[in-house]
Amino acid sequence: MTDQKTMHETATNMCPHYEAAMELLARRWTGLIITTLVNEPARFSEISTAVDGISDRMLSQRLGELEEIGMVERKVDAARRPVLVEYVSTEMARELTPVFNALQEWAEKWMPAKIEA
Amino acid sequence: MTDQKTMHETATNMCPHYEAAMELLARRWTGLIITTLVNEPARFSEISTAVDGISDRMLSQRLGELEEIGMVERKVDAARRPVLVEYVSTEMARELTPVFNALQEWAEKWMPAKIEA
Repeated sequence: MTDQKTMHETATNMCPHYEAAMELLARRWTGLIITTLVNEPARFSEISTAVDGISDRMLSQRLGELEEIGMVERKVDAARRPVLVEYVSTEMARELTPVFNALQEWAEKWMPAKIEA
Repeated sequence: MTDQKTMHETATNMCPHYEAAMELLARRWTGLIITTLVNEPARFSEISTAVDGISDRMLSQRLGELEEIGMVERKVDAARRPVLVEYVSTEMARELTPVFNALQEWAEKWMPAKIEA
């Protein structure tokens, strides 16, 4: 081991905050759902369209998790007929924008449109 | 839908390169393994220590995937006794550094050390 350590790690351990953030993004679909909602509020069906391949059941579960963590709010406009239900990103989610922008830049350079499973 | 679109999305679709990059990071442990190796080359046992909770079988599988994608190289120093086998990040992996740095900054502000499963 050398003395060169980035801010992500101490000599023996990953930074626990960083670890938790990476674990969050490692939940399948979570990053793409947040990306969609950081763009603009969306209805369930709109998120489902934007996040290609996700099942309604999984989307429902992920939105529930993100609400609990405080990254997504469910807004109901009862004055509308039919009632409008939209999912809205919180500041916590929107502040991931620099991460998403950096990932976009990297992806354009390095990532083929489909990787092998 | 509004006209406001970020670079991640067109009107109906996520950018496929971005989608592929997010899918890559959504493979459990992958982000933490890359983070570890971007820091410095490491032996199998060192990665296993840095990435808390990963099994040897899973680490082996992930390293194989990352070699195939071209993000990790396996270097063997046969002149050493015992033979030294290290995993080294490629330029493709190292250029994720801005993503990791942005995530670290976000995590320090927003992420408790453990999130609820």
